[in-house]
Amino acid sequence: MPNPSILILPGDGIGPEVMAEVRKIIAWFGDKRGLRFDVSEDLVGGAAYDKHRLPLADETMAKAQEVDAVLLGAVGGPAYDGLDFSVKPERGLLRLRKEMDLYSNLRPAQCFDALADFSSLKKDIVAGLDIMIVRELTSGVYFGEPRGIIEEGNERVGINTQRYTESEIERAARSAFELAMRRGKKVCSMEKANVMESGILWREVVTRVGKDYPEVGLSHMYADNGAMQLVRAPKQFDVILTDNLFGDILSDCAAMLTGSLGMLPSASLGAPMENGRPKALYEPVHGSAPDIAGQGKANPIACILSFAMALRYSFDQGAEADRLEAAVEKVLADGVRTADLLASEGVEPVSTSQMGDAVITAL
Amino acid sequence: MPNPSILILPGDGIGPEVMAEVRKIIAWFGDKRGLRFDVSEDLVGGAAYDKHRLPLADETMAKAQEVDAVLLGAVGGPAYDGLDFSVKPERGLLRLRKEMDLYSNLRPAQCFDALADFSSLKKDIVAGLDIMIVRELTSGVYFGEPRGIIEEGNERVGINTQRYTESEIERAARSAFELAMRRGKKVCSMEKANVMESGILWREVVTRVGKDYPEVGLSHMYADNGAMQLVRAPKQFDVILTDNLFGDILSDCAAMLTGSLGMLPSASLGAPMENGRPKALYEPVHGSAPDIAGQGKANPIACILSFAMALRYSFDQGAEADRLEAAVEKVLADGVRTADLLASEGVEPVSTSQMGDAVITAL
Ligand SMILES: CC(C)[C@H](C(=O)O)[C@@H](O)C(=O)O
Ligand SMILES: CC(C)[C@H](C(=O)O)[C@@H](O)C(=O)O
Repeated sequence: MPNPSILILPGDGIGPEVMAEVRKIIAWFGDKRGLRFDVSEDLVGGAAYDKHRLPLADETMAKAQEVDAVLLGAVGGPAYDGLDFSVKPERGLLRLRKEMDLYSNLRPAQCFDALADFSSLKKDIVAGLDIMIVRELTSGVYFGEPRGIIEEGNERVGINTQRYTESEIERAARSAFELAMRRGKKVCSMEKANVMESGILWREVVTRVGKDYPEVGLSHMYADNGAMQLVRAPKQFDVILTDNLFGDILSDCAAMLTGSLGMLPSASLGAPMENGRPKALYEPVHGSAPDIAGQGKANPIACILSFAMALRYSFDQGAEADRLEAAVEKVLADGVRTADLLASEGVEPVSTSQMGDAVITAL
Repeated sequence: MPNPSILILPGDGIGPEVMAEVRKIIAWFGDKRGLRFDVSEDLVGGAAYDKHRLPLADETMAKAQEVDAVLLGAVGGPAYDGLDFSVKPERGLLRLRKEMDLYSNLRPAQCFDALADFSSLKKDIVAGLDIMIVRELTSGVYFGEPRGIIEEGNERVGINTQRYTESEIERAARSAFELAMRRGKKVCSMEKANVMESGILWREVVTRVGKDYPEVGLSHMYADNGAMQLVRAPKQFDVILTDNLFGDILSDCAAMLTGSLGMLPSASLGAPMENGRPKALYEPVHGSAPDIAGQGKANPIACILSFAMALRYSFDQGAEADRLEAAVEKVLADGVRTADLLASEGVEPVSTSQMGDAVITAL
């Protein structure tokens, strides 16, 4: 059997810095645990644009389709702000999501005990928080046609189309229910069925899929109320299921509850490939953070935990994923902190690479 | 000169209860301050459906177009969940917004000193918070065509259209900049210009309008980051300008920061009428709260403060609005609390009508 393959796309800003730490971790698993991966690397986002005038070259897209998992750092930055919409760094990421058909985006929002004080929310509201947002990732207003800026009468009109088919809703819903079965057995689905017909269809299909999971408690919430409840009492949730656009906003909101955006990973999963593994891309929830890029300040943990998700969801190495997550918790409990995690207590921050080394030591 | 006219639409759930308190306040201003209004009342939402099989009768719509201000309580409730989309209670409210062309929805998120402990956020993050969300209210995905659930191949597809013309963006933007001039002179505009062309046009038009207000600092933020920043450090904002759908979610998120949804008013303003007053509808941000309806538990303050906004924006009675707001602050400082405002300290809650009376006593 060949080694499982990983394509690394560090991307822009702090992407390459945090990914360097993940490479060390991958090497550690090869040396110490006999888990060897074939790792290749390529460009995405602004870095790809600089070379190819495209945020994702066709060859890179083809490679991403072949590997067992893609690890992505981050895309975008002010240097690319003036670019035409069609070649913006973000389009590279969206092309990967769409062409790999990664319909289920898993975004855990977990509050690490050692960091509970770090949230802007009161400690008792967030301590022990562990929710999973399942965001549909290949459809909705991100991809619907018609779209664009058109002339009408004597002015321009900006148009985007929210569009969901029954089967698109169904497969995202199914992945949320499957996850809930292995967690707290609750799914809360969020849409705006009171004002959008796409939300009505969403609610109907989710309700139907829910019938296949009688053990899972299903509730529905309007997305505006969902945002409110996330801030008011986030621990009421287990799995939150929502569409691409609401998921974008609600998952950032949930992420910030934990107070540590530099900590949060994500997995974007598609249908099983021939070898039984799902198409998969793993990336930190944080962005390219251009303000601190190149300074060795970035927190590599979100990217490291994204690799832990890869171990779990792509490589069937749940125990090794647990090991890696436990190492991260230990490092945090020991008080090791990158600059983003510093409360004002005179703790000295460690660098990106010192944090990576600390995790390896803890492994 | 005839008295200024007000149409009261109590609506559903706690709507009638909180509106009864506003009627007392209106009477007080007539008796004690010589501010007399011609007040009429009609049905909206489920209450209108029960009588007319429509969430807003044509006669009511016509009346709303003629009066100087509409005060609305709340619409919706589980009794109407099974209704067809076209006659849902919410459609009554949306019809008012659309046909009165109320393009600028002002949603202050203010943290009252006496209630700062009540937020799920840490006190220093929210104490003194005073931001104003300006939400475009007549366009976007709420109203764009095509929309509906169609058959395609052998499945159904839910479709909604996000659609913004330059002039729609411009007038909403202008109202945000005008407000900022009278406040902290900062506007932050939120969209998803990185993934939606309608967001690109939004950003471009807002930037152009901003040139007419050189004193106002303008910034742009992606809406997902906006949700995050609202939770992380909400005091960085003064006026937030955003579209109908993002505004729905972000304003609920902002409202919850203050910890007191029962406290927050809103104004929805349109173009000036012949008498120079803007078309206007005022309503609390909270909904119909069916779980506590009819029990005398609801907090009438959001609805009372909505009337204060009417005094300010429709009736040019800024000083009287200040007086009413000060009375509310005094009542809160005195420790008067409806059930929604109770921390767990053994304070006895007052009823809806006791709260209304307390405000009148403080006036
Ligand atoms: C970078 C951007 C295109 C992306 C999105 O909007 O989906 C990001 O915000 C995310 O949530 O992954
Ligand atoms: C009741 C509903 C139609 C409404 C909306 O979505 O606009 C409400 O959530 C609001 O924010 O005023």
